[in-house]
Amino acid sequence: MFVIGERINGQFTDIGDAIAAKDPKPVQDMALRQLAAGSVALDINVGTRVPKEARGDVMEWLVKSVREVTDAPLAIDSPSLDTMRRGVALAARGGKTVINSTTAQEDKLGGFMALAKEFSAGIICLAIDENGVASTADAKTELGMRALAAAMEADVPIEDVYLDPIILPLNCDQKAPEIAMQTISQFRLLSDPAPHVVVGLSNVGQGSRERSLINRTFLAMAIASGLDASIHDPLDEELMNVVFTAELLMNKSIYSDSYLTASRPGR
Amino acid sequence: MFVIGERINGQFTDIGDAIAAKDPKPVQDMALRQLAAGSVALDINVGTRVPKEARGDVMEWLVKSVREVTDAPLAIDSPSLDTMRRGVALAARGGKTVINSTTAQEDKLGGFMALAKEFSAGIICLAIDENGVASTADAKTELGMRALAAAMEADVPIEDVYLDPIILPLNCDQKAPEIAMQTISQFRLLSDPAPHVVVGLSNVGQGSRERSLINRTFLAMAIASGLDASIHDPLDEELMNVVFTAELLMNKSIYSDSYLTASRPGR
Repeated sequence: MFVIGERINGQFTDIGDAIAAKDPKPVQDMALRQLAAGSVALDINVGTRVPKEARGDVMEWLVKSVREVTDAPLAIDSPSLDTMRRGVALAARGGKTVINSTTAQEDKLGGFMALAKEFSAGIICLAIDENGVASTADAKTELGMRALAAAMEADVPIEDVYLDPIILPLNCDQKAPEIAMQTISQFRLLSDPAPHVVVGLSNVGQGSRERSLINRTFLAMAIASGLDASIHDPLDEELMNVVFTAELLMNKSIYSDSYLTASRPGR
Repeated sequence: MFVIGERINGQFTDIGDAIAAKDPKPVQDMALRQLAAGSVALDINVGTRVPKEARGDVMEWLVKSVREVTDAPLAIDSPSLDTMRRGVALAARGGKTVINSTTAQEDKLGGFMALAKEFSAGIICLAIDENGVASTADAKTELGMRALAAAMEADVPIEDVYLDPIILPLNCDQKAPEIAMQTISQFRLLSDPAPHVVVGLSNVGQGSRERSLINRTFLAMAIASGLDASIHDPLDEELMNVVFTAELLMNKSIYSDSYLTASRPGR
């Protein structure tokens, strides 16, 4: 499971404050804590407290700070192609990099796919186009096909493409989780080898009292449907226990009685 | 989700002792506790401490004891057609009854299906035949088809048939859980309306240190694959939390912030 730790994001107070103070230590600590908890990759997001014109600089500072302590894959998380380019260019020097993310409008796809090609980066493609979030499984799958076609066009290998069905909070739209699961199954059938499928997991439990339980139950169900990547908080221990257990149940890691500790490099 | 509580079984010390003492109270308490925890039906199993010749009598005593406190569906759990008949005949007078279980040998199927027809009972059909447990998804599915054909032959409605793929302990065969999930999906496609699919959940974590975590993670994954019934311990609170959460995520119950308490009649 390609777990992308979501905690290096200026929206969180600890990281937002570190950015404001230009103090790399909390950012680096958070990088190492997430990796020790079993995260494979790290999301890097400047957040919205930083003024727009400074976001490229702050992205570079975040990437540089994290690259000083790890060569783990970094997911550069920005809607701006310029900030994205600066983050990806720097991150790719030190290890694998993932573009997080592009929507499926033709013009956006073209620009971001070219960037993926240039830096041999992975790329997360959202089931969103000029009309907003696709709401049915078929409409989402069509946007996934569009993303795969753009990848082929740009000569980006399928192994670098991560399709994201977009999950909405359970308490906003109760039909959404099942539609997301159906879409995940359909995405996996779109090509051979299958594209990766990723979700921004924390959305599903957003605003619910049992947020963590909802997130981890959905994650197990989504993995059964074919999900092989997830952006979430790896410091949620029970959530990561479900990741490691689901991997065993899908026969993707080897059972031992101590698999929960064996799966965590930090233990 | 048709949860069949597994705790009224002579193999458990408390129930075994109550049987030996002919004391209905612990059996009745266990029935009510399981229902309060969200169980829909109750398994009734004499266990192997009781000598063979006495099992029919003990089954009747257990059913009578439980029927004094509830008209919930009872799953009569015995490999013997005679013990089964006595339990089903008595249980069916007071409410819905499920035969747990028949294997897929032609002669066994015939006898148990006739019993299901006679008492309008549900019937659990295991993916086991004269050669033992079917090991591939295709072989399991073939036995499911055989069971459905026998149901049609005996005029038992599909809504009363529960196909069981048989799950093996994860620590014995790591390929088994994924094969079970594939089988569940295939079972659901065998007829329209789809047959119910059930598992004896506690098998999957059997013998593992993280038994409860493995059981509940597999349950979420199996529900995503189409499982709609499960025999397990409803007193495992975290397991039942997963049942209620998965139901929400499949849009089969209505979200409220207090769904965990709302789903438990005992709270």
